[in-house]
Amino acid sequence: MDFTEETATPAVAGSFEGTADPRLREVLGSLVRHLHGFVREVEPTFEEWERAIRFLTETGQRCDDTRQEFILLSDVLGVTMLVDAVNHRTASAATDSTVLGPFHVVASPRRELGDTIDLVGAGEPCVVSGRVSSMDGTPLAGALLDVWQADDHGFYDVQQPGTQPEGNGRGLFTCDHEGRFWFRTVTPSPYPIPTDGPVGRLLAATGRHPYRPAHIHLIVAADGHLPVTTHVFVAGSPYLDSDAVFAVKQSLVRDFARVDDPDKAAAYGVEPPFRHAEFDVVLQPAHGPEAG
Amino acid sequence: MDFTEETATPAVAGSFEGTADPRLREVLGSLVRHLHGFVREVEPTFEEWERAIRFLTETGQRCDDTRQEFILLSDVLGVTMLVDAVNHRTASAATDSTVLGPFHVVASPRRELGDTIDLVGAGEPCVVSGRVSSMDGTPLAGALLDVWQADDHGFYDVQQPGTQPEGNGRGLFTCDHEGRFWFRTVTPSPYPIPTDGPVGRLLAATGRHPYRPAHIHLIVAADGHLPVTTHVFVAGSPYLDSDAVFAVKQSLVRDFARVDDPDKAAAYGVEPPFRHAEFDVVLQPAHGPEAG
Repeated sequence: MDFTEETATPAVAGSFEGTADPRLREVLGSLVRHLHGFVREVEPTFEEWERAIRFLTETGQRCDDTRQEFILLSDVLGVTMLVDAVNHRTASAATDSTVLGPFHVVASPRRELGDTIDLVGAGEPCVVSGRVSSMDGTPLAGALLDVWQADDHGFYDVQQPGTQPEGNGRGLFTCDHEGRFWFRTVTPSPYPIPTDGPVGRLLAATGRHPYRPAHIHLIVAADGHLPVTTHVFVAGSPYLDSDAVFAVKQSLVRDFARVDDPDKAAAYGVEPPFRHAEFDVVLQPAHGPEAG
Repeated sequence: MDFTEETATPAVAGSFEGTADPRLREVLGSLVRHLHGFVREVEPTFEEWERAIRFLTETGQRCDDTRQEFILLSDVLGVTMLVDAVNHRTASAATDSTVLGPFHVVASPRRELGDTIDLVGAGEPCVVSGRVSSMDGTPLAGALLDVWQADDHGFYDVQQPGTQPEGNGRGLFTCDHEGRFWFRTVTPSPYPIPTDGPVGRLLAATGRHPYRPAHIHLIVAADGHLPVTTHVFVAGSPYLDSDAVFAVKQSLVRDFARVDDPDKAAAYGVEPPFRHAEFDVVLQPAHGPEAG
């Protein structure tokens, strides 16, 4: 029987019926139905199909050890945040998650509490502090905080090897016996996602700006708890309502308050004035809230 | 407003509303709805999402000047043939089209009618002949035939640079004043699509064989007519009913008849016995059948 518009989808879905792994079979069956549904709806010309093939090929070829253009594509299409949403359905007091982003591609250097992750010294001094606790309020001593952020020009260290020192804007911190953490950095700025690749061209062609509101990335992990991949966003930052990757959650926005008090500055080892954000993190016990 | 399961699809589709090109806006809106529908249906874990990102990245990175793994992926998912189907809806007497395939990546060398495209001399001698005409039967003098096929081991020249002579299995022929063509080659064999990349791993994981039935590729073009990208398939070949890329149409299957007659062999400049296939091609006038 010929492959026609009528027989196409059952023929291809049927070709995957012999898949041994039932989950892979389910995913591929769904992929075929939705992908064919898209083709049937837009009826691409061959030229459009060729453009799509080229776009996907260039997206793959733009990836290397420090750049992940397919994650960026997933991000700007809202797929990453949708995957996040379907995986975090239970309303809970735990800290909300958000996108990993494409720049968590190297191990962050270990640092001591109070250290700065800013190895350059350009930008407005900033202190971030908080406490990691379980959902019942128990402090999580020794919780691990992996933080990374762009420099004051909006670039991550891995985007500028040779220009930025390796590990600039990154740090792996261990909380103290009360689950507390504090570290120094520079106040984050809004910045564009990389626009010099296929995803940047897509945004330009669609009149979308490439900016993300000011934020610091964190992955927080502790024994017996589910880790959380999240951001802390700077209250009042431009683009909080139009993040290019749809990652803003109101629960993650914090004041980065200006502090002029020289005693407070001295306590953190910075020069006044500086910014100070408090960001407490609540983790969910690994076996459900009742196991906490 | 936070990005949630409820707001996700309108938020992302809405972000493309400012797209100047109305067709691009339509395609992206549809893409977002179908892609999000797929995510909602399968609810991928983050590990599954990461596998998908890696798969797409590796697919892009497997492409080079002589290999197009994304076309291969489109082929095995039936997308290529579905695009072909929605673009060739009108039932007509014109020759059916089928997939281009991933190996039409270099210009075929010009050859004279009767030349062989087999530069190696291994395999069973074969002659392909036919006539190119318009839908009303008018012969199309000077029609161009671009043909390419795998060697008797199932490889295209571009897959084996250094092993096969450049241009082996390829030829660009100009039909005579009666629209006739004939050329020599070796009888094509079934062969597997390349299995040493992500698409091959997908087929292996799903228990699908990678084989294509024996065929010769053709693109036929003539002034004032729509070109056709097609194959001629060998009747009786294995895999005619389970082509890995879903490209078989019954109208394109021909007998490759065994010929023992020494006079006929001499007329084509081959040694008997040889195979002979007749494949007439009918092109559609560029401005609809009435313009023929």
